[in-house]
Amino acid sequence: MTAPKLDPDRLLPTGEGVRRLARTLYEEIATLPLICPHGHTDPAWFVDNACFEDAAELLILPDHYVLRMLLSQGVCYDDLGVPRADGTVPAVDGRSIWRLFAANYRLFLGTPSRVWMDHALYEVIGVDRRLDEATADYTYDFINERLADDSFRPRALYERFGIEVLATTDDALDDLANHRALRDGDWQGRVIPTFRPDRVTDPDNEGFRGDVPRLAELTGEDVTDWSGYLAALRRRRATFIGLGATATDSGFPTARTADLAETECQRLLTGALAGTLPPDDADLFRGQMLTEMARMSIDDGLVMQLHVGSGRNYAPAVQARYGRDRGFDIPMATDWSKGLKPLLDACGLDERLRLILFTLDEATYTRELAPLVGAFPSLLLGPPWWFFDSPNGMRDYRRRVTETAGYFNTAGFNDDTRALLSIPARHDMYRRVEAGVLAEFVAEGQFGLEEARDLAQELAVGLVRRAYKL
Amino acid sequence: MTAPKLDPDRLLPTGEGVRRLARTLYEEIATLPLICPHGHTDPAWFVDNACFEDAAELLILPDHYVLRMLLSQGVCYDDLGVPRADGTVPAVDGRSIWRLFAANYRLFLGTPSRVWMDHALYEVIGVDRRLDEATADYTYDFINERLADDSFRPRALYERFGIEVLATTDDALDDLANHRALRDGDWQGRVIPTFRPDRVTDPDNEGFRGDVPRLAELTGEDVTDWSGYLAALRRRRATFIGLGATATDSGFPTARTADLAETECQRLLTGALAGTLPPDDADLFRGQMLTEMARMSIDDGLVMQLHVGSGRNYAPAVQARYGRDRGFDIPMATDWSKGLKPLLDACGLDERLRLILFTLDEATYTRELAPLVGAFPSLLLGPPWWFFDSPNGMRDYRRRVTETAGYFNTAGFNDDTRALLSIPARHDMYRRVEAGVLAEFVAEGQFGLEEARDLAQELAVGLVRRAYKL
Amino acid sequence: MTAPKLDPDRLLPTGEGVRRLARTLYEEIATLPLICPHGHTDPAWFVDNACFEDAAELLILPDHYVLRMLLSQGVCYDDLGVPRADGTVPAVDGRSIWRLFAANYRLFLGTPSRVWMDHALYEVIGVDRRLDEATADYTYDFINERLADDSFRPRALYERFGIEVLATTDDALDDLANHRALRDGDWQGRVIPTFRPDRVTDPDNEGFRGDVPRLAELTGEDVTDWSGYLAALRRRRATFIGLGATATDSGFPTARTADLAETECQRLLTGALAGTLPPDDADLFRGQMLTEMARMSIDDGLVMQLHVGSGRNYAPAVQARYGRDRGFDIPMATDWSKGLKPLLDACGLDERLRLILFTLDEATYTRELAPLVGAFPSLLLGPPWWFFDSPNGMRDYRRRVTETAGYFNTAGFNDDTRALLSIPARHDMYRRVEAGVLAEFVAEGQFGLEEARDLAQELAVGLVRRAYKL
Repeated sequence: MTAPKLDPDRLLPTGEGVRRLARTLYEEIATLPLICPHGHTDPAWFVDNACFEDAAELLILPDHYVLRMLLSQGVCYDDLGVPRADGTVPAVDGRSIWRLFAANYRLFLGTPSRVWMDHALYEVIGVDRRLDEATADYTYDFINERLADDSFRPRALYERFGIEVLATTDDALDDLANHRALRDGDWQGRVIPTFRPDRVTDPDNEGFRGDVPRLAELTGEDVTDWSGYLAALRRRRATFIGLGATATDSGFPTARTADLAETECQRLLTGALAGTLPPDDADLFRGQMLTEMARMSIDDGLVMQLHVGSGRNYAPAVQARYGRDRGFDIPMATDWSKGLKPLLDACGLDERLRLILFTLDEATYTRELAPLVGAFPSLLLGPPWWFFDSPNGMRDYRRRVTETAGYFNTAGFNDDTRALLSIPARHDMYRRVEAGVLAEFVAEGQFGLEEARDLAQELAVGLVRRAYKL
Repeated sequence: MTAPKLDPDRLLPTGEGVRRLARTLYEEIATLPLICPHGHTDPAWFVDNACFEDAAELLILPDHYVLRMLLSQGVCYDDLGVPRADGTVPAVDGRSIWRLFAANYRLFLGTPSRVWMDHALYEVIGVDRRLDEATADYTYDFINERLADDSFRPRALYERFGIEVLATTDDALDDLANHRALRDGDWQGRVIPTFRPDRVTDPDNEGFRGDVPRLAELTGEDVTDWSGYLAALRRRRATFIGLGATATDSGFPTARTADLAETECQRLLTGALAGTLPPDDADLFRGQMLTEMARMSIDDGLVMQLHVGSGRNYAPAVQARYGRDRGFDIPMATDWSKGLKPLLDACGLDERLRLILFTLDEATYTRELAPLVGAFPSLLLGPPWWFFDSPNGMRDYRRRVTETAGYFNTAGFNDDTRALLSIPARHDMYRRVEAGVLAEFVAEGQFGLEEARDLAQELAVGLVRRAYKL
Repeated sequence: MTAPKLDPDRLLPTGEGVRRLARTLYEEIATLPLICPHGHTDPAWFVDNACFEDAAELLILPDHYVLRMLLSQGVCYDDLGVPRADGTVPAVDGRSIWRLFAANYRLFLGTPSRVWMDHALYEVIGVDRRLDEATADYTYDFINERLADDSFRPRALYERFGIEVLATTDDALDDLANHRALRDGDWQGRVIPTFRPDRVTDPDNEGFRGDVPRLAELTGEDVTDWSGYLAALRRRRATFIGLGATATDSGFPTARTADLAETECQRLLTGALAGTLPPDDADLFRGQMLTEMARMSIDDGLVMQLHVGSGRNYAPAVQARYGRDRGFDIPMATDWSKGLKPLLDACGLDERLRLILFTLDEATYTRELAPLVGAFPSLLLGPPWWFFDSPNGMRDYRRRVTETAGYFNTAGFNDDTRALLSIPARHDMYRRVEAGVLAEFVAEGQFGLEEARDLAQELAVGLVRRAYKL
């Protein structure tokens, strides 16, 4: 049996001439640094720099894409060792989980998970047999042995992957101890926080009424007062900025924004803190907070990210048993044009604002998002998100968005992952797909190879650095 | 003039290398048996086994795709001999109809109807001149002569097409006499019924108030009582199962489901039987019945199919003159995520349920359907339906759905047709397109040829057999 | 430095065999006359036949695609010399504007604007250096010098471009003096008006209450009376017809139509003229007027165009400073199926009606529009509009629409532009893309080269001539 080897031309266009062009373009950007302005890795990894211990724990359990697919084909979360909401953990060992995964690996054929996992296994870890039911034990042992090596400690991986900067996503109430430790330590890696205020700006967060008072404790502001509440958020943003943050992130079900009079804002805040806000008012409060976040961004320069359209924890039985965020994000239609209007009326033409939009509703790419980012100087379109972070998702995005918005109103790539070993795979997929689309533009005679080479650099590093002020 | 010949590489990708791969994959599945789990053929054909007599009656009149296209370009239904709602039939002979069709055959360029018809004419029937205005009489006579041959009787066609099983769609009140005759006869073909309850579960069916009492007659249950009404439906399902049914089918305008308390269900049923249900309550009743059908499927094992989003009989003037279902299905947007939630909350995680979803709203493929079937073990996505049962429709479906849902959360193919002669053409189109997509995946290096060959077998026969328990 | 040269195979498919086919098909239609049934050129150009004077004024200022893209990347409208709503004009000269444009030309990479502009610069004007920051002054002078030549006067351009007929878009209240002058003059070019009644049929037009009385002055009808108001519109249509018009055009935010009783119509009209109509009634009034326009079309034979889904003047700050229609059209979702139903119930099956639909919501191509135009004899689908008038937009449209609607329920191409120099580029882009799609159909074996050649002729000239009765 020969060792598994990834196709060096994978994900490039299949026509001979176009592939040659694409390969040329790809090769020029393949080894550029990885800029990771949005993701969900754990800063503690880089503080502690401890070895990962178990293939299943590292590669399967943190990966919602993998968990949901296995569940969809009848593999139950208990058998995968998914921790329960009550704090208990099913008594299964990593080897059993890995065997289940290996036996079901064909479920992932045609999905980006397969591409990322193949890359992690065969390229990053160097597994020398093809993963399937028969090689489950062999590969499990192989991986675990490799993970024990110093070259697989988090900092070594960061360096080996060529990461230039890695942003984590951090709750507004987080003490940022890990980020402080990184700042004060002597490791040269750049791991920075991102300000995620949703816990204290979304009245539908079940802990809202307890969390907002903690915001008061952290900042000394009177958070029952509208202006005090905003001041508290500003203080937290300043703390994040002090630790290197360049961006914020909000994730809400709808794109609704609002720009209300202060008395109305106070009324909503008071209701939210009393727990008496009806659902529509909670949505209105979130919308108001988006506009406030935009105003704060104008003042303090943090880039604002907005992820809209994911119906989280869609299956209540899964949430009840396993807790939040267990693979049941189900998207819904998004009305960007109507939703964003109050915010854009208030500050959409202000060039000091930079607001990056992410959607799960592809129907809005050409209908709403490309026209919006192709007109407002404050807006950029973020890369294809979640289910669209895939070869076809990326191609569709680029072919459909570019004709209206061009390249320069988009924000490059981000990997948005907590699966550390998949980071290079994700950037590599993106660079290959973009090189392919550029090659098609050149082959179609829309622009020349020199222009494509410049754009390739922009796509790999230029756009994202400027978008996120990195 | 040489005989018309179909391109042996038709519908395969056009790039040289990819086409070669696709041909290899296609050839391995081209002659596998046809599994037909959902369609609208008439079981009487196979009981009587009588010859078809007229080209127009067989190939044009039952085909809504053909009728609507001709009407859209000014050919009126009277001239096509479409029977009227009042029972009269326009006095036109088959030859006139065929001439009209032949003279307008270019309208179908670029549509799947053209591909299916070409296949039926030149491959199945063996017509030796190209159909156009000039050959109308010749081809009409040619076809009619062939139809008189024993080799064109329904059972001979079933066998020649390599059909393994053929499901019809049958009203819940149907006496199933034909299916009984098939069961009791000595022909070896497997033609089975499908349970279609809409007539007695949709209060907007104009005959509802007369039909539900007939359900009582057939089952001896008190259908004015909620539990009796459900029991009656269970009995009918059992009768269908006894005659080989493995599936049900429902077709509603919206995906709304409900899971109401029994008193509320009784109130809706009583109102429906009294004819006093307001439109929104009729929709709610349908939604409740979907959840009930799901529960019954859990009990008796029938696979549940759900076709959503077709606004039927959109043109009242057409319905008034020619009756229901005359080509005026106009789709509308579907909200799957919100609509299915009550049903999924009730039984979406139950692995005994199998629910196959069909949509006419492509915008929901990536936004809602792939995420849903890629998470819930009870759900599968059905093949591209109606207007999407086409080369581009299939390619878009596969490229867009697979990245989130993989191959194994989809249900293979069904031809969904009453046009008997088009059955092999439809399966052939599907197999060619899937082989092409697989070839592209291989050429892109996403997986290897061996994996593609396994998937091709699954797509042609494996997935559909398992999905429908055939 | 060699002179910039457009790729002779630009926009054709990139696969070798398919490209060869596409080239064959394209070459047969490349030089056919240009039929321009819908656009926004100024009839005065052809009356006065004066030279254009300034590159920026001709190529940049009238082009919303260009203005919005520059603004989106921080170039402010003042620096581009965009006239203000108060009548003042920023004091910038054409050269400064051109320099700004040249320095930012890379923003347009991948957009149709780039393709059109390259064509205008290098093919129509013959600019011999590639446009960029370094050549801004050179190209500016070069263009201005060329514009002073007689061969660049409007009539010469009309003839050189091979235009067969050019429709302008004209307000219902327009005195049509230019069209009269053209009719009475001796120039042989065919420049005809199009009847655009929105100003007097949309109560949300801020001038509505002043404009409708002017309609009375022009026609002598009592426009406060419903039947008088309709009669006035009919008279204006007759005037347009007398000057060569073959079509009308309406552009509304939604596709809502209505078919109300006359008393209700009178109530709405009275309210509209009093300025007391609530927003929903204004929408209802517009919807009623669409049905009235359809009825008038049945009577007088004018082809009806309907452009739906553009949220115009989305940014109030831009409108306040620079007036209406300054690049801030932001589309929104459109419900065609439900919206058009009252109109279609009233006259959708009447073959004397011809109604051409334009959308900005691609999700409705397959879900609603192709099924509608593929059934109703009165309906045609217009070409891809605004943001979709682009290579990918056109390909998507054709591949997705054709399978359900065929070729013959679509209306060919129109350039919809006020950018005179881009007219040949736009038709050329369309012909290349259509030739490419046809070549793909042939290469896929769906139909033969002869059929594709016939379709190519239809697409270039046949469909549009018949659709618009030209």
